[in-house]
Amino acid sequence: MGDPVQAIAWRDGALHLLDQRLLPAQEQWIRCESAQQVAMAIREMVVRGAPAIGIAAAYGYALDALAGRDLASAFAVLAESRPTAVNLHWALQRVRGIANPDGPSVLAEAHGIHDEDLAQNLRMAEFGAALLPASGGRVLTHCNTGALATGGHGTALGVIRTAWAQGRLEEVFHTETRPWLQGARLTAWELQKEGIRSRMIADGAAAHLMRTQKIDWVIVGADRIAANGDVANKIGTYALAVAARQHGVKFMVVAPGGTFDTACPDGNAIPIEERGDTELSALLGVQTAPEGTRGWNPVFDVTPVELVDAIVDERGVRSRRDFATVSSSRP
Amino acid sequence: MGDPVQAIAWRDGALHLLDQRLLPAQEQWIRCESAQQVAMAIREMVVRGAPAIGIAAAYGYALDALAGRDLASAFAVLAESRPTAVNLHWALQRVRGIANPDGPSVLAEAHGIHDEDLAQNLRMAEFGAALLPASGGRVLTHCNTGALATGGHGTALGVIRTAWAQGRLEEVFHTETRPWLQGARLTAWELQKEGIRSRMIADGAAAHLMRTQKIDWVIVGADRIAANGDVANKIGTYALAVAARQHGVKFMVVAPGGTFDTACPDGNAIPIEERGDTELSALLGVQTAPEGTRGWNPVFDVTPVELVDAIVDERGVRSRRDFATVSSSRP
Repeated sequence: MGDPVQAIAWRDGALHLLDQRLLPAQEQWIRCESAQQVAMAIREMVVRGAPAIGIAAAYGYALDALAGRDLASAFAVLAESRPTAVNLHWALQRVRGIANPDGPSVLAEAHGIHDEDLAQNLRMAEFGAALLPASGGRVLTHCNTGALATGGHGTALGVIRTAWAQGRLEEVFHTETRPWLQGARLTAWELQKEGIRSRMIADGAAAHLMRTQKIDWVIVGADRIAANGDVANKIGTYALAVAARQHGVKFMVVAPGGTFDTACPDGNAIPIEERGDTELSALLGVQTAPEGTRGWNPVFDVTPVELVDAIVDERGVRSRRDFATVSSSRP
Repeated sequence: MGDPVQAIAWRDGALHLLDQRLLPAQEQWIRCESAQQVAMAIREMVVRGAPAIGIAAAYGYALDALAGRDLASAFAVLAESRPTAVNLHWALQRVRGIANPDGPSVLAEAHGIHDEDLAQNLRMAEFGAALLPASGGRVLTHCNTGALATGGHGTALGVIRTAWAQGRLEEVFHTETRPWLQGARLTAWELQKEGIRSRMIADGAAAHLMRTQKIDWVIVGADRIAANGDVANKIGTYALAVAARQHGVKFMVVAPGGTFDTACPDGNAIPIEERGDTELSALLGVQTAPEGTRGWNPVFDVTPVELVDAIVDERGVRSRRDFATVSSSRP
């Protein structure tokens, strides 16, 4: 493996974020000195990926605690920065809930969240990799769930990293993941750095891939998992789950405990963020569709637990049957 | 309606093609004076869309007939320009097969193919539109199957044009259609010119659209239809068909007679073109994935007839049951 990829760093009393809008063309860091600046970085997708957003928000809260700023407003501005990922709220509640809310203690809690995320990812990677074939495995992943999206190693991509190191995988396919191209820009970059044999496909090619080639598992992350096991994740995930079921391909979701929202009974209760038309009609600054083209741009979707074969968190692997008592209460 | 869109024109003894690689940013025409130049234009996607390719190839053959060049080599270079669309071969066989193969006669036959295509599209549009709700219809289309892809009016988009004029449609959704962005660049442009209410989605959002909103029909074109009714069309079509079936959305294929290949028993016999990695890892000249990113770029896929509810050609509407005697011979 190459140098471990890192996108979130605390240095010189400030939060430094690798600007993921500019990858892979440029590796440029942004320095944040307040919760307000971190919230802006989350909203503008300097940092993205549910676990990474949670970690960044915790550091953002710590910045205002260290500076003696109003923590109620720090909490509010960070909590509102993006609506779908629940790790954001989970991490903020953790830093707000500590017994001794002075700056250094809040910062220590943020560091704890960051370190724990990496440790959880390494555990999840072992659990997930063990589900894959001992050799010759071929998997498909979506979006970016690697070190860039987390405190390190990654969730779904963490499973792939570990499985590759264990010799389980022959090849990894990944989507380009429109509209934000997390697959093309970020996952391709991480896989290349690790030397993992991979090929990129257009999002629309996934069903054709499953129909014409052997794919063992689709492996994705999650932005929020409801009490019944329904999974909100990057737009396009649901289409992959439908196609996987059609072709007998298994479907794995890899997400740490902070992704689970027991207050959400099912996927219908998860707020799905819709972003502006321009993310669809332009691409890396180049206009693709004519000016004035209207779009519908939900950036997440919900995959019902019925289509999920394994949900992996830091405690182990659950099947959709483990969620049955909850989902049996659905209408 | 605005001015009719046109992408293929015979003027001053030469074939003029609207360069579809540059739309919607620029409307620039390319002049072709030989079969060789037309074959290059087809290969490079100056002109694309199965019916348009057939028409262009017929004119290309006429150019060499008029110039007294070797017609066997004209036929070969044109036939090899792209592998999947069968209209290309159908049109070439028509111009080669005429009784009196002098230049003006070949040109007249090419004009005939062009004019017939438009007339067929107008007929198909009536047949297809009649399948849609009388009002309030909501449909999804893929790629570009409009005037730009044909001799005029369009196949799937022709149905949508006519249905819109008849007041049947409330709204049209269309994909952006990676990797070549025919939806974003061409379909959005045509719909805007016609004033048809529409919204664009990322390819990966189609299943989520069908799950969360009312969609009556998916309407697509075809590049080749096998004897059993299996449909080769733009990559991503198969994923839409799988999702449509999952959500009870009906699936319509609109294609003129020249698209049917009775020599192909089923979809497995249709050659699927794979194009280079760079169409995936760069976009309108902008690099999206890191240099060296490997891709898998099949630009068509096959939708089994079992997932198709209606196949519309210039003679009328057929259901998948009409292909049953052929498909019953499958293994």
